[in-house]
Amino acid sequence: MTTRQPVLRLRAGRAAQRPDTLAIEEPLIVRVGGENVTLTMRTPGQDFDLVAGWLVSEGVVAAPADIVAMRMCQDEENTVEVRLAPDVAPPRPRAFATTSACGVCGADSVEAVRTSLRWPILGDDARFDVGVLSALPDLLRSEQKIFDRTGGLHAAGLFTSTGECLVVREDVGRHNAVDKVVGSALRGGRLPLAGHVLQVSGRASFELVHKAAVAGIPVIAAVSAPSSLAVDLAAECGLTLLGFVRGGGMNVYTHQERVRVGPFPRQRNVS
Amino acid sequence: MTTRQPVLRLRAGRAAQRPDTLAIEEPLIVRVGGENVTLTMRTPGQDFDLVAGWLVSEGVVAAPADIVAMRMCQDEENTVEVRLAPDVAPPRPRAFATTSACGVCGADSVEAVRTSLRWPILGDDARFDVGVLSALPDLLRSEQKIFDRTGGLHAAGLFTSTGECLVVREDVGRHNAVDKVVGSALRGGRLPLAGHVLQVSGRASFELVHKAAVAGIPVIAAVSAPSSLAVDLAAECGLTLLGFVRGGGMNVYTHQERVRVGPFPRQRNVS
Repeated sequence: MTTRQPVLRLRAGRAAQRPDTLAIEEPLIVRVGGENVTLTMRTPGQDFDLVAGWLVSEGVVAAPADIVAMRMCQDEENTVEVRLAPDVAPPRPRAFATTSACGVCGADSVEAVRTSLRWPILGDDARFDVGVLSALPDLLRSEQKIFDRTGGLHAAGLFTSTGECLVVREDVGRHNAVDKVVGSALRGGRLPLAGHVLQVSGRASFELVHKAAVAGIPVIAAVSAPSSLAVDLAAECGLTLLGFVRGGGMNVYTHQERVRVGPFPRQRNVS
Repeated sequence: MTTRQPVLRLRAGRAAQRPDTLAIEEPLIVRVGGENVTLTMRTPGQDFDLVAGWLVSEGVVAAPADIVAMRMCQDEENTVEVRLAPDVAPPRPRAFATTSACGVCGADSVEAVRTSLRWPILGDDARFDVGVLSALPDLLRSEQKIFDRTGGLHAAGLFTSTGECLVVREDVGRHNAVDKVVGSALRGGRLPLAGHVLQVSGRASFELVHKAAVAGIPVIAAVSAPSSLAVDLAAECGLTLLGFVRGGGMNVYTHQERVRVGPFPRQRNVS
């Protein structure tokens, strides 16, 4: 997932040539039924998780048996071939029309996402202690093996309501990191992810909340800020959206009923 | 570009309801010749710059006269209609096939980008003092009006070789921020951007280096890490790529001949 590269390092008035570790970014093509359906710039590693999670987000698959087989192409670089079960409709070609038709545009786009969800989240009555939630960024960070060496990767992690870490994935693309987490869960037969929390290393966009919602995850927590549409979508779909989870604090943007505000853990950095 | 939203704020063992400012994220559709050609999730504001810059990146336009008119649709929300000059070929439909055909895939993808550039960068003999370069992140930050209130926006800024700021744009999407900068330059008749430096607030990906290269920008500087493919593309296309420009230091990944290593400015934070 990394490569070494010589670099001119300038620090404190000194210049030095030294090797630097870079996160690898390479294209990955997804091919279904002989047709290329998407291309993403990703960090190699857990490619099958990435493809499986992307198929979940697109609404194509929901159970391990929906994917009969995945394999790396022999004759084409960076291409994963997918064989879906006979009763599973392949993804629509990933042209502009798809994005539009999925309901992102228009006044009722957010409601359109909610009504298309396989697994409603509004009824998920899991509860999460604020102490558990505020510890997640450090837990995620401690699992970010590649970030330590490159400083260049996003991460996403799936945790239980008691803070147990199930899976952490890293990628140059934040959406890929989430797809890898969701794909790993699909392949492990763990969808829908009721009662779980998804912690992401950066900001919370519409796209990330959408991916969490489709996977049935009731809580998404971001180290940084959410966007307006991320908040709208979380509110409509029943997700608890946390932002600025750092320094022992957090902002709860939607569905705060899932957050148990009790005694906080010992603070290291209170802002 | 922002909206207010009530939020449950948890800090230092206290919970308080208070309003919070969010960066707006909304879809924008680009329509050319009556056909929708792309959709991006963006922060409203400078939408015509965004569309113009995207058309530059796609290789469709290169001069102000290539775009005859742009207007917001009256009957459809968040849609910009573009009228191109008669001799300008419209963008190919933004399906998967486009991305693939543009040369991202395959062993010679990076070379394919170089040979497709309208304005070669290898010959750009502009030089940049390390003191000027290390001051850019703070200059960019000082122009980030929306970030101050939301903590949730990426930024891109265009500077001269003496550090004069020409334009800064903010957006929830880093690629949109760069498109807005390039589009502003196109509409001001300033393309190609020989002799300039593009400073971005986050990481440097393949996509961002590609956008800089197409606009003829010889130096791209990131506050955080570049990816492997960003470095490969910059090396091949002749761009100077700087990463980790912070605390008075930086890493020069490619084409270091443009960086004049002289006395550094007074350091505030040396790592």
